[in-house]
Amino acid sequence: MSAVFELAHALIARRSVTPDDAGCQALIAQRLRACGFRIETLHRGDVCNLWATHGEEGPVLAFLGHTDVVPAGPVEAWCSDPFEPSAREGRLYGRGAADMKGSVAAFVVALEAFVAAHPRHPGTLALLLTSDEEGAAIDGVRHVARVFAGRGQRIDWCLVGEPSSREALGDVVRVGRRGSLTATMTVHGVQGHVAYPDLADNPIHRALPVLAELVGRDWDPDPFPDFPPTGFQIANVEAGTGASNVIPGTARIQFNLRYSPRWSADALVAEIEGIVARHGLRADIEWHRSGEPFHTAEGALRCAVREALAEEGVVPDENTGGGTSDGRFIAPLGADVVELGPVNASIHQVDEHIALADLTRLPAIYRRIAEALLLR
Amino acid sequence: MSAVFELAHALIARRSVTPDDAGCQALIAQRLRACGFRIETLHRGDVCNLWATHGEEGPVLAFLGHTDVVPAGPVEAWCSDPFEPSAREGRLYGRGAADMKGSVAAFVVALEAFVAAHPRHPGTLALLLTSDEEGAAIDGVRHVARVFAGRGQRIDWCLVGEPSSREALGDVVRVGRRGSLTATMTVHGVQGHVAYPDLADNPIHRALPVLAELVGRDWDPDPFPDFPPTGFQIANVEAGTGASNVIPGTARIQFNLRYSPRWSADALVAEIEGIVARHGLRADIEWHRSGEPFHTAEGALRCAVREALAEEGVVPDENTGGGTSDGRFIAPLGADVVELGPVNASIHQVDEHIALADLTRLPAIYRRIAEALLLR
Repeated sequence: MSAVFELAHALIARRSVTPDDAGCQALIAQRLRACGFRIETLHRGDVCNLWATHGEEGPVLAFLGHTDVVPAGPVEAWCSDPFEPSAREGRLYGRGAADMKGSVAAFVVALEAFVAAHPRHPGTLALLLTSDEEGAAIDGVRHVARVFAGRGQRIDWCLVGEPSSREALGDVVRVGRRGSLTATMTVHGVQGHVAYPDLADNPIHRALPVLAELVGRDWDPDPFPDFPPTGFQIANVEAGTGASNVIPGTARIQFNLRYSPRWSADALVAEIEGIVARHGLRADIEWHRSGEPFHTAEGALRCAVREALAEEGVVPDENTGGGTSDGRFIAPLGADVVELGPVNASIHQVDEHIALADLTRLPAIYRRIAEALLLR
Repeated sequence: MSAVFELAHALIARRSVTPDDAGCQALIAQRLRACGFRIETLHRGDVCNLWATHGEEGPVLAFLGHTDVVPAGPVEAWCSDPFEPSAREGRLYGRGAADMKGSVAAFVVALEAFVAAHPRHPGTLALLLTSDEEGAAIDGVRHVARVFAGRGQRIDWCLVGEPSSREALGDVVRVGRRGSLTATMTVHGVQGHVAYPDLADNPIHRALPVLAELVGRDWDPDPFPDFPPTGFQIANVEAGTGASNVIPGTARIQFNLRYSPRWSADALVAEIEGIVARHGLRADIEWHRSGEPFHTAEGALRCAVREALAEEGVVPDENTGGGTSDGRFIAPLGADVVELGPVNASIHQVDEHIALADLTRLPAIYRRIAEALLLR
């Protein structure tokens, strides 16, 4: 069995349902300390964070990952126990196999090989792990990034091991992520009987033209390169007493925007509150800002990733699709951020798995990226 | 104590929460039988229906009422027990005092006085009572009207004792009612992640232009005389998984129309299904038809009511506002229907009451109406 398989196996066997780390980081810290890494823990609340570095001065390359996993869901729906890793038909099955204990294991094996081959490499090679990526994401990398900003810890390049690939390892890498902004809007009207509409004021009727404008708008007439256009989606609507003869007094509408660097959360909030005010809608809006967009321009990191994949015969699609990742917290430190990891088809589902061939290839790909960035 | 007060008191003391009659109709039948009325019961299921008539041939005037009441709600919120009638400060308090045991007692006293004074009157004077007006309204007057239609029982004039008055006895009488039509529309989309809108199809977004058209439409450009314009109101909207990052697969929207005789339920259903189809909305609509509109044109009944009130110095506003009543089932038999009853400010609330002065005046008003219609 290969080193990466054994480590992935050992990590999956640890039941680290978010925000529990279940000993994953301690196991990794022990191995990295043994080959000369400095280990720092930045635990906060229930969340474990690990910062392991090797080298002095010069540019900093950090691999970024998480040891927590989403819950397994109904265990009886799985072909094998989600926390008893099972290798069969060329795949390693288990919760976290693809998201992302496979990549974390590959990071560790790549780091060990790199420092064994280049004990006095220039720059700093680092690993940042959290156990709070799948959960609230408050005490994890968000917290670490604040600590780093406070003490001037710089990161030049950050490679995130999130499962970016669609059908084959490396076919998609993320060179940024859209921002995400959620609004919970409470529209105020006046409750009443449907037979006496003049004595009531229907908040659903009031909200319709505003929603129509928000939905119908082209939010990105000039789309940002590498980004899907900014989009607006209504996720939840809740209005009414349940009775068919009562005009409700309030309506609650929750919507979300995924936005390119053409926008910021502040600009969107101002724009939408302006639209609401222009329509004279009586509404309170509670805003939840999940992270600003980031984008990694063409440069050393994207080049290193492309070259490392070229050796595997893969030409990646470099885009910014999908949800958010912890990369959003590292990018504001000034880091270039790229995400490259295994195929994401089975993540968050039953029978999550990683192809054994992909798991085996990942450490060499990550090591090549480190060599391209730190040794040239 | 007056006869009407004593009978109202006796009826309120009977705990006839819908569809329970609690002996009210038996008490009334006994009194009317004693003064020469023929009594017929048309009970169905849990519901009691009473049809009492006096006279032969000629036109038929029926008083229409119900003996059931809505539940009392939290008894501790009442100043006195809702089923222990209490006279104080010029009012009779108790559940049903205004809706409508006061009017039912007044009907009975008016009938007794009328037949005592005019034992051989022309035409037929009748009382129709049900114990299913506040509930499902299926086995009550709806059922009786079907029986009457089947056997050719005609009703020329129907006076409903529902509490029509707003501030003073007789200030408002109803000369018709709007129809009511409710739709529960399920809009079908495709569920998905908000970050991948191209893989999903948001049913809320799809529904918006349809709802905007339905809400924005002028449903009655040429309003029917005596009727408020036909109106459309969205009562309930329910869409979303609760999560802010999921585009829902379906949206459920419930709306209601109150409509004038310019429309029928069939015409509205066809019109709205046409609009939905024209927008290409994938939706299922479940229709609930609560009753077609009816309207009593200027004529003998309206004239008799106005004259009876004129003797009290009252000029009524004759309109068709408000909810529905059992009059909707009698009008299709070819009857003119007018509603006249006490002040409705306290109905369905705690401390429901009727002014003792109004209760005392009602029998004479009802009797005058009968005399105007049957004796001239």
